[in-house]
Amino acid sequence: MDRAAVEVPPVLGDTFFNPRSIAMIGASADLTKIRGRLFAYTYQNGFDGDLYPVSRSHDRIGDYKAYRSIGEIGKPIDLALIVIPAREVPAAVEECAAAGVKNVMIISSGFAEEGGAATSLQDELKAIAARTGIRIAGPNSEGFFNAPSNISATFSPVLEALQSDVPEAAPDQRIGVVSQSGGLGFAVLARGRNMGLSFSTVISAGNEVDLTAADYAEWMVRDPNTSIIVVLAETVRNGPAFLRAAAAAEKAGKPMVFLKMGRSEAGARAAASHTAALTGSHDTYRAIFRRYGVLEAADLDEVVAISAALAVNPIPAGRRVGVVTASGGSGTLMADTYSEHGMRLPQLSPELQAQIEPLVPPHASAANPVDTTAQGHKTGPVSMAVVGLLDRSGEVDMITIIVSAARETSVALIPEKIREVTQRRAKPLLIWTYTRISNLARKIAAESGTVILSDMRHAAKGLAALVTRAEHLKRAPEVPAEDQTITYPAGPDVLTEYRAKEWLETLGVGASDGQMVSSAAAAVAAAEELGFPVALKVQSPDILHKSEVGGVHIGLGTPEAVAEAFEAISSSVARVAPDAAVDGVLVQPMAPRGIELVAGMINDPTFGPVMMLGMGGTAVELYGDVVHYPAPFGADRAEELLRGLKGARFFDGFRGADPVDPSPAAELIARISQIAYAGRDVIGEMEFNPIILHGDGSGVSVADAVIMRKTKV
Amino acid sequence: MDRAAVEVPPVLGDTFFNPRSIAMIGASADLTKIRGRLFAYTYQNGFDGDLYPVSRSHDRIGDYKAYRSIGEIGKPIDLALIVIPAREVPAAVEECAAAGVKNVMIISSGFAEEGGAATSLQDELKAIAARTGIRIAGPNSEGFFNAPSNISATFSPVLEALQSDVPEAAPDQRIGVVSQSGGLGFAVLARGRNMGLSFSTVISAGNEVDLTAADYAEWMVRDPNTSIIVVLAETVRNGPAFLRAAAAAEKAGKPMVFLKMGRSEAGARAAASHTAALTGSHDTYRAIFRRYGVLEAADLDEVVAISAALAVNPIPAGRRVGVVTASGGSGTLMADTYSEHGMRLPQLSPELQAQIEPLVPPHASAANPVDTTAQGHKTGPVSMAVVGLLDRSGEVDMITIIVSAARETSVALIPEKIREVTQRRAKPLLIWTYTRISNLARKIAAESGTVILSDMRHAAKGLAALVTRAEHLKRAPEVPAEDQTITYPAGPDVLTEYRAKEWLETLGVGASDGQMVSSAAAAVAAAEELGFPVALKVQSPDILHKSEVGGVHIGLGTPEAVAEAFEAISSSVARVAPDAAVDGVLVQPMAPRGIELVAGMINDPTFGPVMMLGMGGTAVELYGDVVHYPAPFGADRAEELLRGLKGARFFDGFRGADPVDPSPAAELIARISQIAYAGRDVIGEMEFNPIILHGDGSGVSVADAVIMRKTKV
Repeated sequence: MDRAAVEVPPVLGDTFFNPRSIAMIGASADLTKIRGRLFAYTYQNGFDGDLYPVSRSHDRIGDYKAYRSIGEIGKPIDLALIVIPAREVPAAVEECAAAGVKNVMIISSGFAEEGGAATSLQDELKAIAARTGIRIAGPNSEGFFNAPSNISATFSPVLEALQSDVPEAAPDQRIGVVSQSGGLGFAVLARGRNMGLSFSTVISAGNEVDLTAADYAEWMVRDPNTSIIVVLAETVRNGPAFLRAAAAAEKAGKPMVFLKMGRSEAGARAAASHTAALTGSHDTYRAIFRRYGVLEAADLDEVVAISAALAVNPIPAGRRVGVVTASGGSGTLMADTYSEHGMRLPQLSPELQAQIEPLVPPHASAANPVDTTAQGHKTGPVSMAVVGLLDRSGEVDMITIIVSAARETSVALIPEKIREVTQRRAKPLLIWTYTRISNLARKIAAESGTVILSDMRHAAKGLAALVTRAEHLKRAPEVPAEDQTITYPAGPDVLTEYRAKEWLETLGVGASDGQMVSSAAAAVAAAEELGFPVALKVQSPDILHKSEVGGVHIGLGTPEAVAEAFEAISSSVARVAPDAAVDGVLVQPMAPRGIELVAGMINDPTFGPVMMLGMGGTAVELYGDVVHYPAPFGADRAEELLRGLKGARFFDGFRGADPVDPSPAAELIARISQIAYAGRDVIGEMEFNPIILHGDGSGVSVADAVIMRKTKV
Repeated sequence: MDRAAVEVPPVLGDTFFNPRSIAMIGASADLTKIRGRLFAYTYQNGFDGDLYPVSRSHDRIGDYKAYRSIGEIGKPIDLALIVIPAREVPAAVEECAAAGVKNVMIISSGFAEEGGAATSLQDELKAIAARTGIRIAGPNSEGFFNAPSNISATFSPVLEALQSDVPEAAPDQRIGVVSQSGGLGFAVLARGRNMGLSFSTVISAGNEVDLTAADYAEWMVRDPNTSIIVVLAETVRNGPAFLRAAAAAEKAGKPMVFLKMGRSEAGARAAASHTAALTGSHDTYRAIFRRYGVLEAADLDEVVAISAALAVNPIPAGRRVGVVTASGGSGTLMADTYSEHGMRLPQLSPELQAQIEPLVPPHASAANPVDTTAQGHKTGPVSMAVVGLLDRSGEVDMITIIVSAARETSVALIPEKIREVTQRRAKPLLIWTYTRISNLARKIAAESGTVILSDMRHAAKGLAALVTRAEHLKRAPEVPAEDQTITYPAGPDVLTEYRAKEWLETLGVGASDGQMVSSAAAAVAAAEELGFPVALKVQSPDILHKSEVGGVHIGLGTPEAVAEAFEAISSSVARVAPDAAVDGVLVQPMAPRGIELVAGMINDPTFGPVMMLGMGGTAVELYGDVVHYPAPFGADRAEELLRGLKGARFFDGFRGADPVDPSPAAELIARISQIAYAGRDVIGEMEFNPIILHGDGSGVSVADAVIMRKTKV
């Protein structure tokens, strides 16, 4: 059973984002103040429900009658916006709850982000929400903007500059934005709108005392006006809610784009300093993104580029791009950039080239990129004709047009012709220009149903995201995990190799392959029974790095060598780790040679158990040849993940070695992932390093293992 | 002696880029035609020398008297622009040569880029240049633009849109651009000018029948108006000339930024299709860039970002950045992006934080990023004050300001305050905005002596390039190579391990460590003399992959094992490679265990011998843990290169192993690089794989080697 499959009723009703009545506590007519702008934007933007300013000092705010208190209004209020000094906020929220207000959005700052006494002010809010059931957004939020409902419950200055003469390229593909940073969230709106993208709702989540980013995202999954969900966050505060939202988005076919901030040490420190939040391991976030097909963006421009590519395009059938260019050098550079982002530019067939050649000048190339050369006014019709041929051919999956777009008077694009491609929705199409983008070009691109980009890398990121999404959609669904009750063994929290394998054996993972001994004579007897050569390893819950205390001897081929090794281990451990509780020494047959893998599990406090798979030896540490994925999963997924490692070429017989089927390792790892999930309340960490996939095809050995109990934090 | 140190007189006189007289063959008054625009731009842009249109059909072109032929002018001509049909060009160039014209620039297309008969037309031009000494630029060029001299010898439409109300941020730091693609070269000018950068000369090199990109770059090194040299190229046609230009730029302290196109297979194919040029190995280009401190850009935006960072900034003392932000989320994201590009954001000291704290609101962070929060009109003065503190502190080496820059009416930047930093030139400073960039903000940034960027990654690329340049400037100079005459051994072109080592021994590299035998008895005798265990390896110039034919047996501990191995090799090779000429079998002592490295050399047809160094095993192929550098170099450089590998952690004692001094390997590799350079006319390729750096500190062994003769192409 998947962790996100648990049915939970939605937290957020429609009254929050689509209120029929809004009260504003702290409303002002002074437009130099945040609370003045907040009120003005709300009524100026065409909200057609009831709007009630609440003010202690004024009887009227603009054309509106003002009320002394929320209770005085005497009508049902869906949403109250609060923009008064922090210390007065808890009392105001109490009044709202008493007056039956369904939701409040606290714009005021001066809470947990400030630290000290202000943190307890935020705790008060949390308690009120829990006690009264009122839903609280913020505090320290810039508010939200709901375009289809004409609600501008925000003071973001972006709202002032939102009018644009760029038409909407894909008005039925609206983007919803959830951002923990108000500045960045509304920046996505401003940048996207300027290139012809359409938006549904943009919300600044603030300190998330009650409602979190996950709740807003989950609402957007249900919102018929939202097709693409963008999340900008430094931390996910409610892991299970986020996983439910991601799973719901996946089910609803709405792509999610995630900009995770605080990926680096310096970024995490910066995030902690202004949100008092820990950012979590980025490997874990990547694992979750991979599982749910969430598209990751590294910065603001990537968010906009990926959202744009998703909004204006269908899903491509593959990764082949056809490029039509007016500049040969630009075509070469685009071929490089696309190749470096995983796309392919296939040579066009002789038949297709024969159709293109009559259209282009004699020294132009019809291969791909198709180079129409800069032939003045003829470039437009020529490249449009080539685009039509590419669209109808089976030789490319995506199309890119490269034009000069510097002039405000003309651009070599013909909207009717491009619309034939964009409306057929068979192949994604983007436009890139090597010049600056004129406003004319922006408008023509949008009229054509697509966007024009000036950074080549953004085009590549956009198309690459489409390919990633196409592959996610084609992927087999996750196999539901078996329900299984797991009880952690009594005794020490740390299970050494022998105990770990013993326990796994009881859970159906046949990993046990040695004998525990506590004398040299017993070691020799065990070795004779198991067959030489053997390895000897000290077993102690206090010794995690056995080699470093002289606790491991391998390749022991004779009884004498075994006896000597036992004594050497005993004396070295006694000397180096005199206080360690030693269970004994494990005598183990040497595993056949093979491909070394490593697997591990971390039970993440936000998202639960996440598996780590990598190539063994030094590949993980030196070369990062590792992948993370949330438990549980089946053997097919495990094999897919293993085959995604750079070292996967070993499975195919790298450098003249025989190929080795990775499925025994995949099955072992999948089974471990299911135990990790079933034991999510008791197991804190697991490490299997190395796992040896036998080169002779005889299976898999776990050459070392350690398991740790989950401790309460 | 360095390959670029050869003194060669400059190819390009000042008459080309700074002509006092220009003739235009094919001039027209028709502005809808390229030749009409070419003429109009030339006189409109304020050229104050003599301008002579040459036309067969008109007596006047605009206000200018037209001549029937170049000979009719009867005055000295520095530069003739030629824009007539391709087939008439050779005769026109002949006439120019006869009339004493110093340089011609051929705008006309229809030459080698077209293939077929047009290629021979280009060969004619080459022959004329060689015969007459006239210098030819192009053909198939968009011309050039020389801003300080007011020469617009180009039809690029960019020239029309060049007026900008953005002031020049650093008017004494002009950028020169050499581009094989006219579209991209002039796009750099348009994009850069729009952000306040200043340019000297932009030239479209075209097909480079005579003058090449290297000649233009070399002129820019000498040009007092050029401070930064940008090269955009699909191929370097004249390797030695380019190396001389790069070395001269290095010596003159002028940074060079290079956008290499055709890096990928698809890009190389695209380049070949429109320039008939092979793009060469990108590893080799990277090696040359590394050697001469050339800064590589991956696309147009990186070119502009890196050029901008260089133009407006001094060289930083280190990689520490201080960030001042009006948006907390943006600060976090900047910390991530900078960290991911190799910069550091140090926490500021308690003392410095104590100076900052009174300036910022209570919930703002003074740590770094310094978060001033969005406090309306106060943000500007506050962040300016913080910038001043950072500039005077010893805690950061570079500064970034993050602002909202969407409004056309105000932006929180104070030019006088920022100029205090930019004019002091102690620390680089860039501005980034999360919003769109208003024209106002662009102007204010330029007035402040810097630039404002909207893509965070561009800011990171710019600062990272400054750090790279700072490190290059601090690097010890190359050690001159000894002069040495190298004669390739008589016999086969391929030297197998034994022969290769024997030859190296005569060149002063003590690598020989085995005996060649041709019977089992001799093998046993050799093993007994060398000491067990030994390895046996077949030696044949026809067998490059010995293991694949069963030609290698290692770890042979007894006479019987050696004899058996000899027979096994003999029969296996006879069966699998019956036609191979076998020199014998090499008996070799087993090298002590250690760190495996690999070294190689490719004698690049453009740039000469380039060394390859990497970690051994599968690290090069699977993980690309490899670096290239042009031969020759000294042991210090070799060690620096080895220490730059990801696997270099092994030298420091990775994972509990003892540290190993890499200097024996560095000395061996440096010596090989000197042989590679001295033998550049005779050695085509070398490979040493693996080189074993003994873990016990006893030195280094070459466990396999092959050398190939340079064959004439």
